Amino acid sequence: MAVGLKAPDRLLPVAGIRLARASAGIYRRARPDLVLIEAAPGSSAAAVFTSNAFCAAPVSVARAHLATGMPRYLLINAGNANAGTGAAGVVAAQQSCRAVAQLGGCTPEQVLPFSTGVIGEHLPLAGIEAALPGLHAALAAGAWLDCAHAIMTTDTLPKGASRRIDMDAAQVTLTGIAKGAGMIHPQLATLLAFVATDAAIAPALLRRMLQHAADGSFNRISVDGDTSTNDALVLLASGHAGSAPIRDWHDPRRGLLQAALDELCRELAQAVVRDGEGATKFISLKVTGGADAGECLLVARAVAVSPLVKTAFFASDANWGRIVAAIGNAGLGGLDPARVRILLDDVCIVQHGGRAPGYQEADGRRVMQQEEISVTIDLGRGDAATEFWTCDFSHEYVRINAEYRS
Amino acid sequence: MAVGLKAPDRLLPVAGIRLARASAGIYRRARPDLVLIEAAPGSSAAAVFTSNAFCAAPVSVARAHLATGMPRYLLINAGNANAGTGAAGVVAAQQSCRAVAQLGGCTPEQVLPFSTGVIGEHLPLAGIEAALPGLHAALAAGAWLDCAHAIMTTDTLPKGASRRIDMDAAQVTLTGIAKGAGMIHPQLATLLAFVATDAAIAPALLRRMLQHAADGSFNRISVDGDTSTNDALVLLASGHAGSAPIRDWHDPRRGLLQAALDELCRELAQAVVRDGEGATKFISLKVTGGADAGECLLVARAVAVSPLVKTAFFASDANWGRIVAAIGNAGLGGLDPARVRILLDDVCIVQHGGRAPGYQEADGRRVMQQEEISVTIDLGRGDAATEFWTCDFSHEYVRINAEYRS
Repeated sequence: MAVGLKAPDRLLPVAGIRLARASAGIYRRARPDLVLIEAAPGSSAAAVFTSNAFCAAPVSVARAHLATGMPRYLLINAGNANAGTGAAGVVAAQQSCRAVAQLGGCTPEQVLPFSTGVIGEHLPLAGIEAALPGLHAALAAGAWLDCAHAIMTTDTLPKGASRRIDMDAAQVTLTGIAKGAGMIHPQLATLLAFVATDAAIAPALLRRMLQHAADGSFNRISVDGDTSTNDALVLLASGHAGSAPIRDWHDPRRGLLQAALDELCRELAQAVVRDGEGATKFISLKVTGGADAGECLLVARAVAVSPLVKTAFFASDANWGRIVAAIGNAGLGGLDPARVRILLDDVCIVQHGGRAPGYQEADGRRVMQQEEISVTIDLGRGDAATEFWTCDFSHEYVRINAEYRS
Repeated sequence: MAVGLKAPDRLLPVAGIRLARASAGIYRRARPDLVLIEAAPGSSAAAVFTSNAFCAAPVSVARAHLATGMPRYLLINAGNANAGTGAAGVVAAQQSCRAVAQLGGCTPEQVLPFSTGVIGEHLPLAGIEAALPGLHAALAAGAWLDCAHAIMTTDTLPKGASRRIDMDAAQVTLTGIAKGAGMIHPQLATLLAFVATDAAIAPALLRRMLQHAADGSFNRISVDGDTSTNDALVLLASGHAGSAPIRDWHDPRRGLLQAALDELCRELAQAVVRDGEGATKFISLKVTGGADAGECLLVARAVAVSPLVKTAFFASDANWGRIVAAIGNAGLGGLDPARVRILLDDVCIVQHGGRAPGYQEADGRRVMQQEEISVTIDLGRGDAATEFWTCDFSHEYVRINAEYRS
């Protein structure tokens, strides 16, 4: 039931980056479930990971490996999260890195492992090791879309996006893929997203650019208020486009690339919400008039995770009472309800702490029946603003999560 | 679909307290929707209210009236929350207090108004005023159960409890009623609960006793993570039992009465969860081994509000992965997953950050198929503990909230 989302027609190859997918038999039925991404020597990489204290074994290993130097390979599996697997899970993740390193001629620390799927089952390492030689031999620049398919779990569609910009007489490409539909409420990153560019960017700068992009995209979405154990967002920069290296935050080319990166990450993050488990509506929240961006985000999150608000959206019910109740719970000190205004698209439904004068139920209902709805909440106490994206809560959400063992 | 809950057989009258119910036509179909509770002159009263910044008009008015002295009357309506109604809502609530005061021969400030039901509609004052004379004439000591019926909204059963204890050669009675099934995640009190005793208790002490009881009951439950705009818990003490006044926290009779009050409030709070919207399971969370009670509560709340945990309980799925993910999101600094243990009833399912050695899925499934499930989470880093009660998340929850305009 994805909302306003279709599979990408094509994803642009990124010079210096090759990918492949295979079936390692992690799922009972045969399907691609294993992906290898290779970055050419000299590439730089940055990543942000889940803030969940029970982070998965691959997250611990990837974080440690990334700290020692620049990775050459990302190994990603679907169908098993390798989370809640204790010390044995860490050993399995490290072993998978060693196997890739042998094939790729690098150190195990230059391999980052990523997993998504059921929590608490041990990683089926034998099948993964058996699939690796074929996977390595198949690496190709044009496999982005195939790989977007292979990392799906409860996703109904593959998610990916590309951008191309001119830089230094060269063309720079940016392509990313993501997966995720449930357990989506990122605090630092989202379930799994991999973005690559052939621009040349210094590692320290790359990390800052990624954090900037994550803050405006994956850190602004929620499907169900549950932050996953496995969230990771990775950015690779191969430097193969031929443009000169970018080292300075104030370099205008950084601004150019940042805008494209921010937009691409926002598109991927929104794709995760559009494909949210059971989603029938895509909701854009704009919180304005806050004293600072932090309190705008608190209000957006409180509204986005409220089951009562989400079921009202499912019912196409312009139930502003539930929205004001959620705003009131955001924990803002001294919030004056009489200053709060709420609009559904361009229809003002709340003003002075109650129903807006002149508001007609029919107007609210017209907006609520749309598949895509914009909600603006003006707090009336400052100039700060933020955006946030979420979806509704349907019968299908309960069915999926009562039947699926995530 | 209430879990392990039936309507009380009878509720004990409390000397000095009289009640009545009537139909004021707030609902389209005729049903009792208005309740008046009278406390004899000289009674003391205490109340705790919602922390929602968008608190309802009756909450503002009741809080202000209570600050000026001791109330004689509580006026309660179902079917309309008088919330999100701006200045007009406050005027309506005040007007209803004036009408009661005229009948009862007291000041309007001695009347506290309470409302529950749909948010954002204006209070139908004419019907309420028309019903008041009959209501006042019908006041009687034995109407507790009738009144528990009259304040229900999406509740499927009336909720009430009584206790009787010996004190100073007198018998002291404690009776309370409550309503609530959705928008339940109290931060200071719950939807609506009214408790009365005929013991004599000094007002300042009464407030402290009520806060103690609330902290161990209504502040320890969640149905859907949404804190209502209208939550209120009121305790009346008429002093008509004949026991000597209690003025000191260290008076052993205070301890005796406190134990009965705490237990009664816990029973009412648990009744709200058992009757949670769409609930099919009643879940008792025990968080132990915390550094302090505050962090135990954070963990309990994080688990209790997770839609993924709640849908797993609905599916009778011993999905401990979702429980550890929720614990990991509670925001505890330096939490060591390797020290965390989780038990379903007496079955240890998680140890050392993963599946407990020797745990069999069949044992977990046996516990999960029960209607009442106890979950113990041992954080392994201190001696503090807390309890919390919640319910599962079913298809029925979505149906109720997509169809009901709360």
